[in-house]
Amino acid sequence: MHTDLVAALDIGGTKIAGALVDGGGRILLRAQRPTPAQEDGDTVMRAVEGVLHDLTGSPLWARAGSIGIGSAGPVDATTGTVSPVNVPGWRDFPLVKRVRAVACGLPVELIGDGVAIAAAEHWQGAARGHDNALCMVVSTGVGGGLVMGGRLHPGPTGNAGHIGHISVDLDGDPCPCGARGCVERIASGPNIARRALANGWRPGPDGDASAAAVAKAARAGDPPAVASFERAAQALAAGIAATATLVEIDIAVIGGGVAGAGDVLFTPLRRWLRDYVTLSFVQHLKVTAAQMGRDAGLVGAAAAALHAAPDATAAGVGG
Amino acid sequence: MHTDLVAALDIGGTKIAGALVDGGGRILLRAQRPTPAQEDGDTVMRAVEGVLHDLTGSPLWARAGSIGIGSAGPVDATTGTVSPVNVPGWRDFPLVKRVRAVACGLPVELIGDGVAIAAAEHWQGAARGHDNALCMVVSTGVGGGLVMGGRLHPGPTGNAGHIGHISVDLDGDPCPCGARGCVERIASGPNIARRALANGWRPGPDGDASAAAVAKAARAGDPPAVASFERAAQALAAGIAATATLVEIDIAVIGGGVAGAGDVLFTPLRRWLRDYVTLSFVQHLKVTAAQMGRDAGLVGAAAAALHAAPDATAAGVGG
Repeated sequence: MHTDLVAALDIGGTKIAGALVDGGGRILLRAQRPTPAQEDGDTVMRAVEGVLHDLTGSPLWARAGSIGIGSAGPVDATTGTVSPVNVPGWRDFPLVKRVRAVACGLPVELIGDGVAIAAAEHWQGAARGHDNALCMVVSTGVGGGLVMGGRLHPGPTGNAGHIGHISVDLDGDPCPCGARGCVERIASGPNIARRALANGWRPGPDGDASAAAVAKAARAGDPPAVASFERAAQALAAGIAATATLVEIDIAVIGGGVAGAGDVLFTPLRRWLRDYVTLSFVQHLKVTAAQMGRDAGLVGAAAAALHAAPDATAAGVGG
Repeated sequence: MHTDLVAALDIGGTKIAGALVDGGGRILLRAQRPTPAQEDGDTVMRAVEGVLHDLTGSPLWARAGSIGIGSAGPVDATTGTVSPVNVPGWRDFPLVKRVRAVACGLPVELIGDGVAIAAAEHWQGAARGHDNALCMVVSTGVGGGLVMGGRLHPGPTGNAGHIGHISVDLDGDPCPCGARGCVERIASGPNIARRALANGWRPGPDGDASAAAVAKAARAGDPPAVASFERAAQALAAGIAATATLVEIDIAVIGGGVAGAGDVLFTPLRRWLRDYVTLSFVQHLKVTAAQMGRDAGLVGAAAAALHAAPDATAAGVGG
């Protein structure tokens, strides 16, 4: 039997998704469970096992050569453990060992969810063909991952690219992470909404106080809504510029719900980037919207597994 | 003849140094000229050629298999050109082509001076044995270079690790680079001195208003001198923490004149790092003083040449 597929798991605080993916990035089989995020660790693991059983029960499973896991972080690829901030029952939880037990000993590759997004966008999406890329998710939080020299850069523990928690305002507001002025503390959806409200924006009759509602108000010219997106764009620009200056990237790809605001975010972001991207070697930097949508985590986890186990490719070598 | 040596050039705004270096990092022959930094480009190049002729005139030259150049930046390794900020006569100057012409066509490897420092500290100095390191120079400017996954990361153009020009204070003071609140704008020697003077520190009878004089005053407890080093340490901590969070490093090595202040800098730096390095995967980060001293640029340029041309090693393969 050729092992021309990989299994992929995308583990977040809301849902646990699984898939069998081929060497071209196509999803052939899907499975999903809600994450019982507030339950104990074994209960959360049983949801993962349920997803895995939906995959292993398929005749396609015999063609899977390895498993890629993209998990909410922090993760620790050196020990195969995860400690997702939003899943308190998992602290140094031995996810790799537990998944391998269900999956008959297949090799398992663990990366953070931001790294998985970068793998997906580089393989199939907006960063395709770019050897040096930052891919970000701007949503409830701000995460990211890096491609350098044509290869994914998970870092030793699988968490590299964590742009949401770099400080761009060293005297700024305290961040839940313990630092001050982090990109996430300024640019995440909840912080965009909080700042708009504090400066006088008011939700419409539907009571929607989300960043998406602020974006709608900003498109209509509401000053505190516009100002809140301006500030988020400034923080994102400083963080993206810092990344480009440190590791040399030529494209920044931005996805997630806040990126759905479109020009309300991207127009001031490109303007602010001209202020912070000043050195000659970073001035060709492009910023663009992500293309992979909701499957990015699964496709990226699959990419990581394919990359780590090059035998398990569409060419059908191995197995 | 075995090519068991490499030639190294360290090109700065003050001096142009050259050397022949063996596979163990020992300097067997040195040459040096002052940089005629305010002269036209060909005059500057003649100083480089003078240094090269001192090397090519030696019987040792026949053992040189390649040339490494560490140059004040920005550099462009893709075109072999350099545009050092402090050498206005060189803009997109074809340094690699000109050096190769003098050096009989030997392969030439070009990197920025911060990258060279990192290569040296990783090969022979404080970052030895560390697969993921940031090495910095804090002096008149602030520069740096990165080692990731056990290898130097010059980036596509040879400028990666440019930590001096990441913004850690997005609303901060304008930096000559065009951005605001850059690490260099807060933590360089001249900025430490400027801030101390602005807050009431006064030089002694010798009139020395350098950062070294501020460090001496800080050691004696002078409040504006202490406060100025505190602020520099805070900016360095935010920049180092950002780097660790983005690419996962386990050690930051700091050299240059300002690092010579010792505990006056390193004690507040380590304290501030605890505030900015908050995520689990970066909490083991160490900060230490550089070990390579004034030869770092030459040794690092040699390391880059050895790395790029693996035949030219102490083992004497090739040639």
